[in-house]
Amino acid sequence: MSKERPTIADVATRAGVSKGAVSFALNGRPGLARTTVDRILAAADELGWRPSSRARSLSVSKAFALGLVITRDPAVLSSDPFFPAFIAGVESVLAPRGQALVLQVVTAGEDEAAGYRRLAQDGRVDGVFLSDLRHEDPRIELLVELGLPAVTLNRPVGSSPFPAVCLDDRPGTVAVVEHLLQLGHRRIAHVAGPPAFVHATARSQAFTETLAAAGLEPIGVEVSDFTAAGGTEATRRLLALPEPPTAIVYANDRMAIAGIGAAHQAGLTVPDDLSVAGFDDSELAEFVHPALTTVRADPFAFGATAATTLIQSIDGDGDVADVELPPAQLVVRGSTALLEE
Amino acid sequence: MSKERPTIADVATRAGVSKGAVSFALNGRPGLARTTVDRILAAADELGWRPSSRARSLSVSKAFALGLVITRDPAVLSSDPFFPAFIAGVESVLAPRGQALVLQVVTAGEDEAAGYRRLAQDGRVDGVFLSDLRHEDPRIELLVELGLPAVTLNRPVGSSPFPAVCLDDRPGTVAVVEHLLQLGHRRIAHVAGPPAFVHATARSQAFTETLAAAGLEPIGVEVSDFTAAGGTEATRRLLALPEPPTAIVYANDRMAIAGIGAAHQAGLTVPDDLSVAGFDDSELAEFVHPALTTVRADPFAFGATAATTLIQSIDGDGDVADVELPPAQLVVRGSTALLEE
Repeated sequence: MSKERPTIADVATRAGVSKGAVSFALNGRPGLARTTVDRILAAADELGWRPSSRARSLSVSKAFALGLVITRDPAVLSSDPFFPAFIAGVESVLAPRGQALVLQVVTAGEDEAAGYRRLAQDGRVDGVFLSDLRHEDPRIELLVELGLPAVTLNRPVGSSPFPAVCLDDRPGTVAVVEHLLQLGHRRIAHVAGPPAFVHATARSQAFTETLAAAGLEPIGVEVSDFTAAGGTEATRRLLALPEPPTAIVYANDRMAIAGIGAAHQAGLTVPDDLSVAGFDDSELAEFVHPALTTVRADPFAFGATAATTLIQSIDGDGDVADVELPPAQLVVRGSTALLEE
Repeated sequence: MSKERPTIADVATRAGVSKGAVSFALNGRPGLARTTVDRILAAADELGWRPSSRARSLSVSKAFALGLVITRDPAVLSSDPFFPAFIAGVESVLAPRGQALVLQVVTAGEDEAAGYRRLAQDGRVDGVFLSDLRHEDPRIELLVELGLPAVTLNRPVGSSPFPAVCLDDRPGTVAVVEHLLQLGHRRIAHVAGPPAFVHATARSQAFTETLAAAGLEPIGVEVSDFTAAGGTEATRRLLALPEPPTAIVYANDRMAIAGIGAAHQAGLTVPDDLSVAGFDDSELAEFVHPALTTVRADPFAFGATAATTLIQSIDGDGDVADVELPPAQLVVRGSTALLEE
């Protein structure tokens, strides 16, 4: 018997049952005979067992579910460029294991911490994905306090005890801007995503820095919202500038595809009059006309890798290493062309 | 004390606690003193209380979660025309209540029933959405047996004890075909979704029947898969027919937008050489060029209404009425035009 705090293994030994049975009993899940439950609860009492983050990590996969808290207005969730594919990737790992994903949407401005507390305290999930990292993210400390295993999507600023699965957006954006510079473009604009999101900010910074390295400034930067409507409006504003851009780099494909439509409506032809580049290589990118030059991120692989890493972190004893995904790659298609003046 | 099977209320009275406390104790959720839990379990034992569908319906919202089992290859989940918006609608009802959605993806061919059994037996959810209804759907009987409240999306063939939330696809498809007939088109083709899905079949049937009522036959029907790649291939096959169509009706917007791209690649202009119509009025439909004539379904409202109905069914005592959503509406935009010959 350990001199330290008793574990589920200790309770199992004393009660003469498996660790799984202890986990079932302590979590009130059905399937055990009442007498077995009583024996296990008695053993836990005698040993002074109490739930703790350590005990939690030993009660392997007791919920058989992972949690994802998304802070978004539900109305914009379906137009999100990332989550449907990320969730599909997570499910590609969970489905064969018969595990579930518990999705908790928190409306912006509501109490996000309560979402995590509910998942932790109800024992509903064995671990959570931490997405949309913010600067000085208070959720790191909250999850440590709750004793809930987690994986962060990208590396938080500041210290974190959780493994990170990282996808560097910057090289893809750098490659897009360098591609346009090589095509002779100098008047280049950017339609950015919401600055509260680390990945939107990373793309914007990479855009501006790559232009600066070439001695240029953006002809315009419009902050938008990743939606088709937002991309259309931003494109109209940029095309109405006294010196309109000859190329626009969008922070996602949806805004870029809408931008092609807006350019056509303004009487311009893409790519003859305006080069357009997106980000995501979403499903439609290859099939619209002209086919969209974009950056191939792989949110499905991101989700699958994050799920695998989180499960390792829940099941394993030791530290789980960070995973660096291959950086997003430039995909050149028909929507960008040599500048002709 | 009731002469019938004891309820949670009976246990609560005997133990001198609230019904909520009984629900917590019987479901092993934390937050109660050990002595209180013991008193409740003793009272339940003395009364001979056992979980049942009736007891389940009385232990209101004990999981504070609803379940959705989706039978799909996870790889195609993110390109699905329906689920991201439907889930967003569900979340618009759950988020303000702090409730979660438990998502269980079952790969096609795997044991779908096991997914429902897991959700029911673990007490993970208070009820489930039954989507992708099939002919002679065995899940109805399974859910009755499991005692799990449910709502069906559309009305199953055969009897069902569950409320149905219905959205009739047919009037929208009829309106699209009649719109094309009024524009003078006679050589009209259809790109259908997978026939295993009731809504794909409903759209195909409405298409064929509306043409038949005008004394016409389809110039071609391609069965596809709702993806952009599938829409592109189907379009190429239709345009290669000896007598190619002058108009194509697609079973969703994604295939239709890809179809516009395929038409352009084949040297055709939409709508001058080919009219194109979609189904969904998805976010991009209004913003591509030409803007897409389509049918406005509202999967977000479908999800919100289904969630509200399911919660009523879980919380309430009596029967919950079926809900008939307003039928999908034709939205005429630039991708369809008068036939010029």
